[in-house]
Amino acid sequence: MKALPERGRIGIFNRSYYEEVVVVRVHRELLDRQKVPRALLETKSLWKDRCKDIRNVESYLSRNGTLIRKFFLHVSRKEQERRFRERLERPEKNWKFSSADLKERQYWRQYHDAYEDMIRRTATPEAPWYVVPADHKWFTRVVVAAAIVDGLAGLDLEYPRISKAQSKAIARATRLLGRGRDMQP
Amino acid sequence: MKALPERGRIGIFNRSYYEEVVVVRVHRELLDRQKVPRALLETKSLWKDRCKDIRNVESYLSRNGTLIRKFFLHVSRKEQERRFRERLERPEKNWKFSSADLKERQYWRQYHDAYEDMIRRTATPEAPWYVVPADHKWFTRVVVAAAIVDGLAGLDLEYPRISKAQSKAIARATRLLGRGRDMQP
Repeated sequence: MKALPERGRIGIFNRSYYEEVVVVRVHRELLDRQKVPRALLETKSLWKDRCKDIRNVESYLSRNGTLIRKFFLHVSRKEQERRFRERLERPEKNWKFSSADLKERQYWRQYHDAYEDMIRRTATPEAPWYVVPADHKWFTRVVVAAAIVDGLAGLDLEYPRISKAQSKAIARATRLLGRGRDMQP
Repeated sequence: MKALPERGRIGIFNRSYYEEVVVVRVHRELLDRQKVPRALLETKSLWKDRCKDIRNVESYLSRNGTLIRKFFLHVSRKEQERRFRERLERPEKNWKFSSADLKERQYWRQYHDAYEDMIRRTATPEAPWYVVPADHKWFTRVVVAAAIVDGLAGLDLEYPRISKAQSKAIARATRLLGRGRDMQP
Protein backbone atom coordinates (compact mmCIF):
# COMPACT_ATOMS: atom_id res chain seq x y z
CA MET A 1 0.00 0.00 0.00
CA LYS A 2 2.85 2.33 0.83
CA ALA A 3 4.46 1.81 -2.57
CA LEU A 4 1.36 2.17 -4.76
CA PRO A 5 1.70 4.69 -7.59
CA GLU A 6 -0.08 8.01 -7.19
CA ARG A 7 -2.60 9.21 -9.80
CA GLY A 8 -1.04 9.57 -13.22
CA ARG A 9 1.86 7.24 -12.43
CA ILE A 10 2.67 3.65 -13.32
CA GLY A 11 3.94 1.34 -10.59
CA ILE A 12 5.65 -1.96 -11.31
CA PHE A 13 5.71 -4.55 -8.55
CA ASN A 14 8.26 -7.30 -8.99
CA ARG A 15 7.00 -9.45 -6.13
CA SER A 16 4.23 -8.01 -4.03
CA TYR A 17 1.60 -8.91 -1.45
CA TYR A 18 1.08 -12.07 -3.47
CA GLU A 19 4.16 -13.42 -1.69
CA GLU A 20 1.88 -13.73 1.33
CA VAL A 21 -0.13 -16.46 -0.38
CA VAL A 22 2.77 -18.18 -2.15
CA VAL A 23 6.16 -18.37 -0.43
CA VAL A 24 4.56 -18.06 3.01
CA ARG A 25 2.20 -20.88 2.09
CA VAL A 26 5.00 -23.15 0.86
CA HIS A 27 7.21 -22.29 3.84
CA ARG A 28 4.72 -22.21 6.67
CA GLU A 29 7.50 -21.41 9.18
CA LEU A 30 7.65 -17.88 7.70
CA LEU A 31 4.08 -17.34 8.86
CA ASP A 32 4.86 -18.50 12.38
CA ARG A 33 7.53 -15.81 12.52
CA GLN A 34 5.17 -13.00 11.40
CA LYS A 35 3.84 -12.37 14.93
CA VAL A 36 0.24 -12.55 13.76
CA PRO A 37 -2.39 -13.58 16.33
CA ARG A 38 -2.33 -17.26 17.26
CA ALA A 39 -5.99 -17.50 16.23
CA LEU A 40 -5.02 -16.56 12.67
CA LEU A 41 -2.47 -19.37 12.48
CA GLU A 42 -5.17 -21.86 13.38
CA THR A 43 -7.71 -20.51 10.87
CA LYS A 44 -8.54 -23.13 8.28
CA SER A 45 -9.63 -20.52 5.76
CA LEU A 46 -6.36 -18.59 6.13
CA TRP A 47 -5.28 -18.67 2.46
CA LYS A 48 -8.82 -18.21 1.23
CA ASP A 49 -9.20 -15.19 3.53
CA ARG A 50 -5.92 -13.70 2.34
CA CYS A 51 -6.98 -14.09 -1.28
CA LYS A 52 -10.27 -12.39 -0.42
CA ASP A 53 -8.35 -9.51 1.20
CA ILE A 54 -6.39 -9.18 -2.03
CA ARG A 55 -9.55 -9.20 -4.17
CA ASN A 56 -11.06 -6.59 -1.88
CA VAL A 57 -8.15 -4.20 -2.04
CA GLU A 58 -7.79 -4.59 -5.80
CA SER A 59 -11.50 -3.98 -6.26
CA TYR A 60 -11.17 -0.81 -4.16
CA LEU A 61 -8.17 0.37 -6.16
CA SER A 62 -9.84 -0.39 -9.46
CA ARG A 63 -13.04 1.49 -8.64
CA ASN A 64 -10.96 4.46 -7.61
CA GLY A 65 -9.12 4.62 -10.90
CA THR A 66 -6.11 2.31 -10.69
CA LEU A 67 -5.75 -0.05 -13.65
CA ILE A 68 -4.35 -3.37 -12.46
CA ARG A 69 -2.67 -5.97 -14.67
CA LYS A 70 -0.99 -9.02 -13.18
CA PHE A 71 1.52 -11.26 -14.94
CA PHE A 72 2.60 -14.74 -14.03
CA LEU A 73 5.67 -15.68 -16.04
CA HIS A 74 5.51 -19.42 -16.38
CA VAL A 75 8.94 -20.99 -16.85
CA SER A 76 8.93 -24.77 -17.37
CA ARG A 77 10.86 -27.01 -15.00
CA LYS A 78 13.16 -28.01 -17.84
CA GLU A 79 13.92 -24.43 -18.87
CA GLN A 80 14.61 -23.50 -15.26
CA GLU A 81 17.18 -26.30 -15.09
CA ARG A 82 18.81 -25.01 -18.28
CA ARG A 83 19.03 -21.48 -16.89
CA PHE A 84 20.50 -22.62 -13.57
CA ARG A 85 23.07 -24.74 -15.42
CA GLU A 86 24.05 -21.74 -17.51
CA ARG A 87 24.59 -19.67 -14.38
CA LEU A 88 26.92 -22.32 -13.05
CA GLU A 89 28.83 -22.93 -16.27
CA ARG A 90 29.19 -19.49 -17.83
CA PRO A 91 31.47 -17.21 -15.81
CA GLU A 92 29.67 -14.04 -16.92
CA LYS A 93 26.43 -15.50 -15.50
CA ASN A 94 27.89 -16.78 -12.24
CA TRP A 95 26.79 -13.66 -10.40
CA LYS A 96 23.17 -14.60 -11.02
CA PHE A 97 23.51 -17.95 -9.31
CA SER A 98 22.07 -18.42 -5.86
CA SER A 99 22.01 -21.76 -4.09
CA ALA A 100 18.73 -20.63 -2.49
CA ASP A 101 17.13 -20.83 -5.96
CA LEU A 102 18.25 -24.42 -6.25
CA LYS A 103 16.83 -25.20 -2.83
CA GLU A 104 13.46 -23.67 -3.75
CA ARG A 105 13.41 -25.81 -6.91
CA GLN A 106 12.79 -28.82 -4.66
CA TYR A 107 9.42 -27.26 -3.78
CA TRP A 108 8.30 -27.04 -7.40
CA ARG A 109 5.08 -29.00 -6.82
CA GLN A 110 4.11 -27.00 -3.74
CA TYR A 111 4.75 -23.70 -5.53
CA HIS A 112 2.75 -24.95 -8.49
CA ASP A 113 -0.24 -25.70 -6.26
CA ALA A 114 0.04 -22.41 -4.36
CA TYR A 115 0.25 -20.39 -7.60
CA GLU A 116 -2.67 -22.25 -9.12
CA ASP A 117 -4.89 -21.65 -6.10
CA MET A 118 -3.79 -18.01 -5.87
CA ILE A 119 -4.51 -17.30 -9.53
CA ARG A 120 -7.87 -19.04 -9.42
CA ARG A 121 -8.94 -17.04 -6.38
CA THR A 122 -7.64 -13.62 -7.35
CA ALA A 123 -8.30 -13.42 -11.09
CA THR A 124 -11.12 -10.89 -11.47
CA PRO A 125 -12.43 -8.86 -14.41
CA GLU A 126 -11.01 -5.66 -12.90
CA ALA A 127 -7.64 -7.19 -11.96
CA PRO A 128 -6.95 -10.07 -14.37
CA TRP A 129 -4.02 -12.46 -14.29
CA TYR A 130 -2.05 -13.04 -17.48
CA VAL A 131 -0.37 -16.43 -17.31
CA VAL A 132 2.43 -16.04 -19.83
CA PRO A 133 4.61 -18.89 -21.12
CA ALA A 134 8.10 -17.65 -20.33
CA ASP A 135 10.54 -20.18 -21.71
CA HIS A 136 11.21 -17.79 -24.59
CA LYS A 137 11.83 -14.26 -23.42
CA TRP A 138 10.91 -12.59 -26.72
CA PHE A 139 7.45 -14.20 -26.59
CA THR A 140 6.89 -13.22 -22.95
CA ARG A 141 7.81 -9.63 -23.75
CA VAL A 142 5.44 -9.40 -26.69
CA VAL A 143 2.53 -10.73 -24.64
CA VAL A 144 3.18 -8.45 -21.65
CA ALA A 145 3.75 -5.38 -23.82
CA ALA A 146 0.53 -6.05 -25.74
CA ALA A 147 -1.45 -6.36 -22.52
CA ILE A 148 -0.01 -3.08 -21.24
CA VAL A 149 -0.71 -1.28 -24.51
CA ASP A 150 -4.28 -2.60 -24.43
CA GLY A 151 -4.69 -1.42 -20.88
CA LEU A 152 -3.36 2.05 -21.61
CA ALA A 153 -5.54 2.39 -24.72
CA GLY A 154 -8.59 1.51 -22.64
CA LEU A 155 -7.87 4.39 -20.28
CA ASP A 156 -8.88 6.84 -22.98
CA LEU A 157 -6.12 9.27 -22.08
CA GLU A 158 -5.72 12.69 -23.62
CA TYR A 159 -3.15 15.47 -23.50
CA PRO A 160 -3.89 18.28 -21.03
CA ARG A 161 -6.09 20.96 -22.58
CA ILE A 162 -4.60 24.41 -22.65
CA SER A 163 -6.22 27.56 -21.36
CA LYS A 164 -7.05 30.64 -23.46
CA ALA A 165 -4.08 32.48 -21.97
CA GLN A 166 -1.80 29.61 -22.97
CA SER A 167 -3.33 29.64 -26.46
CA LYS A 168 -2.49 33.31 -26.84
CA ALA A 169 1.03 32.77 -25.59
CA ILE A 170 1.52 30.04 -28.16
CA ALA A 171 0.21 32.26 -30.99
CA ARG A 172 2.54 35.02 -29.90
CA ALA A 173 5.51 32.68 -29.77
CA THR A 174 4.65 31.34 -33.23
CA ARG A 175 4.61 34.88 -34.68
CA LEU A 176 7.94 35.68 -33.06
CA LEU A 177 9.51 32.52 -34.42
CA GLY A 178 8.05 33.27 -37.87
CA ARG A 179 9.72 36.70 -38.05
CA GLY A 180 12.98 35.04 -37.08
CA ARG A 181 13.43 37.42 -34.14
CA ASP A 182 14.75 34.68 -31.92
CA MET A 183 17.49 34.03 -34.44
CA GLN A 184 18.98 37.50 -34.07
CA PRO A 185 22.24 37.61 -32.18
CA MET B 1 -2.87 2.95 5.58
CA LYS B 2 0.40 4.85 5.64
CA ALA B 3 -0.22 6.07 9.18
CA LEU B 4 -1.36 2.80 10.75
CA PRO B 5 0.52 1.79 13.91
CA GLU B 6 3.05 -1.01 13.62
CA ARG B 7 2.77 -4.13 15.81
CA GLY B 8 2.97 -3.30 19.50
CA ARG B 9 1.95 0.34 18.99
CA ILE B 10 -1.24 2.29 19.52
CA GLY B 11 -2.40 4.67 16.80
CA ILE B 12 -5.00 7.37 17.39
CA PHE B 13 -6.80 8.76 14.36
CA ASN B 14 -8.55 12.05 14.91
CA ARG B 15 -10.41 12.08 11.60
CA SER B 16 -9.61 9.25 9.20
CA TYR B 17 -10.83 7.54 6.05
CA TYR B 18 -14.30 7.96 7.49
CA GLU B 19 -14.17 11.52 6.18
CA GLU B 20 -14.61 9.94 2.75
CA VAL B 21 -18.15 8.88 3.64
CA VAL B 22 -19.10 11.93 5.70
CA VAL B 23 -17.78 15.35 4.70
CA VAL B 24 -17.36 14.25 1.07
CA ARG B 25 -20.93 12.98 1.12
CA VAL B 26 -22.32 16.23 2.56
CA HIS B 27 -20.19 18.35 0.22
CA ARG B 28 -20.39 16.40 -3.00
CA GLU B 29 -18.23 19.00 -4.78
CA LEU B 30 -15.21 17.64 -2.85
CA LEU B 31 -15.71 14.31 -4.59
CA ASP B 32 -15.82 15.94 -8.01
CA ARG B 33 -12.39 17.41 -7.27
CA GLN B 34 -10.84 14.05 -6.27
CA LYS B 35 -10.01 13.09 -9.87
CA VAL B 36 -11.64 9.70 -9.46
CA PRO B 37 -12.98 7.98 -12.62
CA ARG B 38 -16.16 9.52 -13.99
CA ALA B 39 -17.82 6.09 -13.78
CA LEU B 40 -17.33 6.18 -10.01
CA LEU B 41 -19.08 9.52 -9.70
CA GLU B 42 -22.10 8.07 -11.43
CA THR B 43 -22.22 4.90 -9.32
CA LYS B 44 -25.42 4.77 -7.31
CA SER B 45 -23.89 2.45 -4.73
CA LEU B 46 -20.93 4.81 -4.18
CA TRP B 47 -21.38 5.33 -0.42
CA LYS B 48 -22.39 1.73 0.14
CA ASP B 49 -19.27 0.59 -1.76
CA ARG B 50 -17.03 2.90 0.24
CA CYS B 51 -18.46 1.57 3.49
CA LYS B 52 -17.85 -1.96 2.25
CA ASP B 53 -14.23 -1.04 1.44
CA ILE B 54 -13.90 0.21 5.01
CA ARG B 55 -15.39 -2.96 6.46
CA ASN B 56 -13.06 -5.03 4.30
CA VAL B 57 -9.89 -3.25 5.35
CA GLU B 58 -10.90 -3.28 9.02
CA SER B 59 -11.67 -6.99 8.81
CA TYR B 60 -8.23 -7.55 7.28
CA LEU B 61 -6.52 -5.50 9.97
CA SER B 62 -8.45 -7.20 12.73
CA ARG B 63 -7.63 -10.71 11.57
CA ASN B 64 -3.98 -9.75 11.38
CA GLY B 65 -3.85 -8.57 14.97
CA THR B 66 -4.93 -4.93 15.04
CA LEU B 67 -7.57 -4.13 17.66
CA ILE B 68 -9.92 -1.45 16.33
CA ARG B 69 -12.17 0.74 18.46
CA LYS B 70 -14.12 3.63 16.92
CA PHE B 71 -15.67 6.52 18.83
CA PHE B 72 -18.32 8.91 17.67
CA LEU B 73 -18.54 11.81 20.12
CA HIS B 74 -22.10 13.01 19.88
CA VAL B 75 -22.46 16.68 20.82
CA SER B 76 -26.03 18.01 20.81
CA ARG B 77 -26.97 20.93 18.61
CA LYS B 78 -27.67 23.04 21.68
CA GLU B 79 -24.33 22.26 23.32
CA GLN B 80 -22.52 23.07 20.07
CA GLU B 81 -24.18 26.47 20.04
CA ARG B 82 -23.08 27.06 23.64
CA ARG B 83 -19.47 26.14 22.79
CA PHE B 84 -19.36 28.37 19.72
CA ARG B 85 -20.80 31.26 21.74
CA GLU B 86 -18.11 30.75 24.37
CA ARG B 87 -15.42 30.91 21.70
CA LEU B 88 -16.81 34.23 20.53
CA GLU B 89 -17.34 35.75 23.95
CA ARG B 90 -14.36 34.60 26.00
CA PRO B 91 -11.09 36.14 24.79
CA GLU B 92 -9.01 33.15 25.93
CA LYS B 93 -11.16 30.90 23.71
CA ASN B 94 -11.21 33.18 20.67
CA TRP B 95 -8.34 31.23 19.06
CA LYS B 96 -10.59 28.18 18.84
CA PHE B 97 -13.19 29.96 16.79
CA SER B 98 -13.46 29.28 13.08
CA SER B 99 -16.20 30.69 10.90
CA ALA B 100 -15.96 27.48 8.87
CA ASP B 101 -17.36 25.60 11.88
CA LEU B 102 -20.34 27.92 11.92
CA LYS B 103 -20.88 27.36 8.22
CA GLU B 104 -20.81 23.59 8.63
CA ARG B 105 -23.40 23.90 11.42
CA GLN B 106 -25.93 24.73 8.70
CA TYR B 107 -25.50 21.20 7.39
CA TRP B 108 -26.41 19.59 10.72
CA ARG B 109 -29.17 17.44 9.26
CA GLN B 110 -27.05 16.23 6.34
CA TYR B 111 -24.15 15.35 8.65
CA HIS B 112 -26.56 13.57 10.95
CA ASP B 113 -27.83 11.40 8.10
CA ALA B 114 -24.34 10.70 6.75
CA TYR B 115 -23.06 9.71 10.20
CA GLU B 116 -26.07 7.51 10.84
CA ASP B 117 -25.66 5.64 7.56
CA MET B 118 -21.88 5.34 8.05
CA ILE B 119 -22.22 3.93 11.57
CA ARG B 120 -24.92 1.49 10.56
CA ARG B 121 -22.85 0.18 7.66
CA THR B 122 -19.45 -0.01 9.34
CA ALA B 123 -20.24 -1.19 12.86
CA THR B 124 -18.94 -4.78 13.02
CA PRO B 125 -18.08 -7.12 15.89
CA GLU B 126 -14.35 -6.79 15.13
CA ALA B 127 -14.45 -2.99 14.67
CA PRO B 128 -17.33 -1.63 16.77
CA TRP B 129 -18.52 1.96 16.94
CA TYR B 130 -19.03 3.55 20.35
CA VAL B 131 -21.53 6.37 20.05
CA VAL B 132 -20.72 8.45 23.11
CA PRO B 133 -22.86 11.34 24.40
CA ALA B 134 -20.36 14.19 24.49
CA ASP B 135 -22.13 17.19 25.97
CA HIS B 136 -20.28 16.54 29.24
CA LYS B 137 -16.60 15.94 28.69
CA TRP B 138 -16.05 14.05 31.96
CA PHE B 139 -18.66 11.50 30.91
CA THR B 140 -17.22 11.09 27.41
CA ARG B 141 -13.77 10.51 28.84
CA VAL B 142 -14.95 7.85 31.28
CA VAL B 143 -16.76 5.93 28.52
CA VAL B 144 -13.87 6.11 26.05
CA ALA B 145 -11.27 5.21 28.69
CA ALA B 146 -13.37 2.22 29.83
CA ALA B 147 -13.69 0.95 26.26
CA ILE B 148 -9.93 1.24 25.75
CA VAL B 149 -9.14 -0.50 29.05
CA ASP B 150 -11.56 -3.29 28.08
CA GLY B 151 -9.92 -3.62 24.69
CA LEU B 152 -6.42 -3.78 26.16
CA ALA B 153 -7.47 -6.33 28.78
CA GLY B 154 -8.89 -8.52 26.03
CA LEU B 155 -5.53 -8.59 24.27
CA ASP B 156 -4.17 -10.83 27.03
CA LEU B 157 -0.82 -9.06 27.03
CA GLU B 158 2.17 -10.19 29.06
CA TYR B 159 5.63 -8.88 29.83
CA PRO B 160 8.44 -10.24 27.64
CA ARG B 161 9.82 -13.51 29.04
CA ILE B 162 13.49 -13.47 29.91
CA SER B 163 16.06 -15.96 28.75
CA LYS B 164 18.12 -18.21 31.03
CA ALA B 165 21.14 -16.00 30.49
CA GLN B 166 19.12 -12.94 31.54
CA SER B 167 17.87 -14.86 34.59
CA LYS B 168 21.44 -15.57 35.65
CA ALA B 169 22.45 -11.97 35.11
CA ILE B 170 19.58 -10.86 37.32
CA ALA B 171 20.52 -13.32 40.08
CA ARG B 172 24.10 -12.10 39.92
CA ALA B 173 23.01 -8.47 40.10
CA THR B 174 20.76 -9.25 43.08
CA ARG B 175 23.70 -10.84 44.95
CA LEU B 176 25.90 -7.88 44.22
CA LEU B 177 23.27 -5.42 45.42
CA GLY B 178 22.75 -7.55 48.55
CA ARG B 179 26.42 -7.30 49.48
CA GLY B 180 26.25 -3.59 48.96
CA ARG B 181 29.14 -3.67 46.49
CA ASP B 182 27.52 -1.18 44.19
CA MET B 183 27.42 1.29 47.09
CA GLN B 184 31.19 1.42 47.43
CA PRO B 185 32.79 4.58 46.11
